[in-house]
Amino acid sequence: MTLAVRYTAARTLDTAPAETSAPGPGEVELAPAYVGICGTDLHIFHGDMDARVSAPAVLGHEMSGRVVRVGPGVEGWRPGDAVTVMPLRWDDTCPACRAGHQHICQHLDFIGIDSPGAMQQRWVVPASTLIRLPGSLPLDRAALVEPTAVAVHDVGRAGLRDGEKVVVVGGGPVGILIALVARAAGAEVRVVELSAHRRLLAEELGLTAWNPVDDDVPELVRQWTGDAGADVAFEVSGAAGGVDTAVDVLGVRGRLCLVAIHPRPREVNLHRFFWRELTLVGARLYDRSDFEKAVTLVADGTIPAERLISKVVPLTQAPAAFEALEGGGDVMKILVECTDDAQGAAV
Amino acid sequence: MTLAVRYTAARTLDTAPAETSAPGPGEVELAPAYVGICGTDLHIFHGDMDARVSAPAVLGHEMSGRVVRVGPGVEGWRPGDAVTVMPLRWDDTCPACRAGHQHICQHLDFIGIDSPGAMQQRWVVPASTLIRLPGSLPLDRAALVEPTAVAVHDVGRAGLRDGEKVVVVGGGPVGILIALVARAAGAEVRVVELSAHRRLLAEELGLTAWNPVDDDVPELVRQWTGDAGADVAFEVSGAAGGVDTAVDVLGVRGRLCLVAIHPRPREVNLHRFFWRELTLVGARLYDRSDFEKAVTLVADGTIPAERLISKVVPLTQAPAAFEALEGGGDVMKILVECTDDAQGAAV
Repeated sequence: MTLAVRYTAARTLDTAPAETSAPGPGEVELAPAYVGICGTDLHIFHGDMDARVSAPAVLGHEMSGRVVRVGPGVEGWRPGDAVTVMPLRWDDTCPACRAGHQHICQHLDFIGIDSPGAMQQRWVVPASTLIRLPGSLPLDRAALVEPTAVAVHDVGRAGLRDGEKVVVVGGGPVGILIALVARAAGAEVRVVELSAHRRLLAEELGLTAWNPVDDDVPELVRQWTGDAGADVAFEVSGAAGGVDTAVDVLGVRGRLCLVAIHPRPREVNLHRFFWRELTLVGARLYDRSDFEKAVTLVADGTIPAERLISKVVPLTQAPAAFEALEGGGDVMKILVECTDDAQGAAV
Repeated sequence: MTLAVRYTAARTLDTAPAETSAPGPGEVELAPAYVGICGTDLHIFHGDMDARVSAPAVLGHEMSGRVVRVGPGVEGWRPGDAVTVMPLRWDDTCPACRAGHQHICQHLDFIGIDSPGAMQQRWVVPASTLIRLPGSLPLDRAALVEPTAVAVHDVGRAGLRDGEKVVVVGGGPVGILIALVARAAGAEVRVVELSAHRRLLAEELGLTAWNPVDDDVPELVRQWTGDAGADVAFEVSGAAGGVDTAVDVLGVRGRLCLVAIHPRPREVNLHRFFWRELTLVGARLYDRSDFEKAVTLVADGTIPAERLISKVVPLTQAPAAFEALEGGGDVMKILVECTDDAQGAAV
């Protein structure tokens, strides 16, 4: 008998026995070790994505684990291999795929939202989604590879160049990862974040963090850049004020990379886009090269993943962890541990 | 005694004698022949730009004419030379200039807004602003070079490639010029325009024009593009609905080039920018290479400038022409003719 965390209705998760099935042709059965709780998982938990998610639904797409069994025709993978999963399935036939943008396929299956996710003790996925992890990388840290791949993709979409000045608006897990990836790419970075806890963590990681309430962020950027404005801003806050800040801080020909999800339309200062010839670039998910780069950055310590993990809870306590996260709280990333040992420890 | 058209207060223009002064070092005195009335001139006329424009102000920045006198130290120009003017003066010291973006200098002097314009019989400008016109190009058509340079710049900012599908939202003079420049660059183009008169003119120029009220533009684009969406949209309408249309029609990785001025913030569907990884690119003015390309396009007939000129009025009737334009009306481009002969003919 294996366990799974299931979303059953708005604000309701349970832990229930799950059926296991043998991997089919081209599939692999995994034993997830650690699964991160993502902002998107919280949106689902809140019931905001009921139009897309069919309850009961197993959540989770930021994971690490090991291969248990391989299905017919699967080559190159053996039981015990350490892996993470790029949780995307595309149709290869839509205009987006034909144009080479499979990661934003017009009929994308995002595994963990549109189909069952990793928050369970056994998980069958297509072998094509597997990304190999180096044996030296602890699996808890490896659960940060997926959000790091998001950050790598975002920095790539912004076209970031060595020496540029970057403002990251929003210092949650993805914002901090973007700041770290951008710094590793040679940028000077400032983080704008409301939470004192998150600002402190950013500072501990060697980043400069500003408080958008107490600090005059546009003025600080003017001083920092000699009145030129920033080269790149990342909007990772999801807030209306975050969009304004990201637009305000940019200099002539600056690029705003839009990372956060804004479900409703936002008022945008389009005049500034015209006046300064700004560029806004939407960024969503990642491709395989982003994932492979993310593995390297986490494995070599460029991303100090262990510093971003606030807490590890067993599968059986995931529902409580979601409720705690919903209240905000002074946390960065919470991992759910899926192994039998972890469940035993929690009993 | 020479005449000038002056903006004196909101909704008030007059025609008054102007002082002429000899061109100083590095300057040239011109005799403007034709000056187009631009949307920006109408904004000034409405009083919307009083914070920037010091009345009395001579308007006009879309012009053609001839050199009358050259000031000390000016080489390469002789009386009688046919010219147009790139009406920009930059400071060469601000961060934008130092980054090579002089045309959006942080202290730009736009001649015709920030300093006296071309709607007069003699006009002194820096020799550095002159663009040579081929002798074969009639001067009335040459007055369309400046807005054509805007269109060339916009198409360049959009990174338009051969064979791409383009939607131009707004079929006024700049929109039509963008459509023509894009078509010349190998694009397939659709124009979205409310005015039946302007749609008819677009069709006469071989463009397909849609009515955003009666036509389901996003559905037409889906059919046209096989569900892929357009590659590029140009927002030239300045309307809130125009922004929505431009965002709606774009396919995955589509680019929206923002040309129109939106004085107030607009609600923008940022979720679509995220979901489809769209790009928004602001475009303002032009540089010298855009102007030189525009001269070629107008001179070789790629831009059928004569078809876009609705009316030519003498300087003395410019105030009445502004009032007529303010009422909308079935017009595209109105030129003001500045020569003595034209004034005589009008009496």
